[in-house]
Amino acid sequence: MRAVVIREPGGPEVLEVREVDAPDVPEGHVRVAVRFAGVNRADLLQRLGMYPAPPGAPPDVPGLEYAGVVEAAGKGARRFAPGDRVFGLVPGGAYAERIVAHEREVAPAPDGLSDEEAAAVPEAFVTAYDALVTRARLAPGERVLVHAAGSGVGTAGLQVARALGCFVVGTSRTQDKLDRCRELGLDAGVAAPGGKFADEVLKATRGAGVDVVLDLVGGAYVAEDLKACASRARIALVGLTAGASAELDLRELLRKRVELIGTVLRSRPLEEKIAAAQALERNISPWLARRAVRPVVDRVFAIDDAAAAHIYMASNASFGKVLLRIGA
Amino acid sequence: MRAVVIREPGGPEVLEVREVDAPDVPEGHVRVAVRFAGVNRADLLQRLGMYPAPPGAPPDVPGLEYAGVVEAAGKGARRFAPGDRVFGLVPGGAYAERIVAHEREVAPAPDGLSDEEAAAVPEAFVTAYDALVTRARLAPGERVLVHAAGSGVGTAGLQVARALGCFVVGTSRTQDKLDRCRELGLDAGVAAPGGKFADEVLKATRGAGVDVVLDLVGGAYVAEDLKACASRARIALVGLTAGASAELDLRELLRKRVELIGTVLRSRPLEEKIAAAQALERNISPWLARRAVRPVVDRVFAIDDAAAAHIYMASNASFGKVLLRIGA
Repeated sequence: MRAVVIREPGGPEVLEVREVDAPDVPEGHVRVAVRFAGVNRADLLQRLGMYPAPPGAPPDVPGLEYAGVVEAAGKGARRFAPGDRVFGLVPGGAYAERIVAHEREVAPAPDGLSDEEAAAVPEAFVTAYDALVTRARLAPGERVLVHAAGSGVGTAGLQVARALGCFVVGTSRTQDKLDRCRELGLDAGVAAPGGKFADEVLKATRGAGVDVVLDLVGGAYVAEDLKACASRARIALVGLTAGASAELDLRELLRKRVELIGTVLRSRPLEEKIAAAQALERNISPWLARRAVRPVVDRVFAIDDAAAAHIYMASNASFGKVLLRIGA
Repeated sequence: MRAVVIREPGGPEVLEVREVDAPDVPEGHVRVAVRFAGVNRADLLQRLGMYPAPPGAPPDVPGLEYAGVVEAAGKGARRFAPGDRVFGLVPGGAYAERIVAHEREVAPAPDGLSDEEAAAVPEAFVTAYDALVTRARLAPGERVLVHAAGSGVGTAGLQVARALGCFVVGTSRTQDKLDRCRELGLDAGVAAPGGKFADEVLKATRGAGVDVVLDLVGGAYVAEDLKACASRARIALVGLTAGASAELDLRELLRKRVELIGTVLRSRPLEEKIAAAQALERNISPWLARRAVRPVVDRVFAIDDAAAAHIYMASNASFGKVLLRIGA
């Protein structure tokens, strides 16, 4: 089968399409013919050698999410039959024509979605749902702040919050992306090119502050998050694009009784990956079927153009998801 | 009635015993003749003018906890009759012969405890229980790290964790206090005079790290807490004796999926104060009655020696609680 392989750690040019062996199908697993794979920032880090694949995942083929068709079921696997349309998360290897996954990590693709749309769902929506609902216990009607609102996780997060009846404030580096977020339901946008947003967020919430923050940025944003928080707020920290070091005012954390919650999907044990996959099937798919939320596809690149897809992703120009077309 | 009054912000010498008007008993409230009041670090800050009493509390009479006898019940108050032994938390004013509190903020004192022992319970045990169980969701069998293990909250916290079957590691500045904590059930003690404890805590847990931290210290301790944490740990931050500023490695917070939870009892709205008081009655009193946990009284000062009590508390020499004897 064909796969995008990281020849050696480096720039986009180290990605090359090679013929590799298709994986076997262990007991309890299914093999999926991948049609589309999502491109994620973690793939870029993995390509640079800064984010090695976890044990059990192919070390040199990136790709954390896919949509495709079941091709074969291993011994004891009963949830799917060949021909079933599925989507899901894998710890790596989705930039390839075939992947295998435990059948309980695989979810049926909703009927109303194309394969392309389905591939734009798993990483963005599972990350946003897990951070906002499972970890930060987002409740209906609360006020939410979503950073990088135009990103894949950002567009998913603001829609998840809106689907729960929340008031959503979003930040982005550009006004153009905020305007497009409004079409997805964003209530108020804050252009934050310098990383200062707390005053504007307080204004947008009439001084109340926000109950939950979905922070994909980290670094100095976390101190600003604290200022923008209401009493008993939860900050779900899922990314560190602005850096890993933060100087925090703990007095504010205590006084407001804020929870700062670190979370990451990667490197979880199997049972937790299955739980995340089940949120896809149980909680997110029904919303997708009823059009309460929808995946946002920005651009689709051919498998041979994986390097161009990485360059585009790194440019921060995308709105929503960047995908690779893998198979027919 | 007699009360300890803060004459003006300043050192221990500004505390003086004065004759003041006894408080009225509003609807739904009871008046309690105070026998003993607990001395807390917050009282010292209030005396210095750094921690003003919340609205509704007497501005110049410190005291956050008491044990005593009900003297009168206001209109509509039915939970207690004159003569009932009670204990509880108040937002201030407990260094006085009489206090009033909403009847739902007052708890019956357990039969097996003297008035002196009862006065050593509320602040320490409610703070520890709320932080460990309610906020940090401590589960049976988890590994717990308790800082300042010889303090009032520390001695309560380590016993609460032990009552849940947890393995408890404690830190203290002195080996002597750690030895005394062992008698209360501490499994492993780490003397941490320089504020470095993570390596020793990892050693004490055979490399596993801890699931929950009860941190009364703050400042640079929080970065060390992160190092000592297991995956999915919760750090409950309830005090800042080492300062309010912390430089954190957010990468570690994400990777381990740690929650940093700020919490403080003061300045909560009435319904949350009632919830905290009910934990005293529902969860802590049964443990006290069955001797699963016990209050630790270090020294009792006469009401006229409140200044000496504050000097003693500030010396960090105490083990467990410092009390004032208020009335007969």
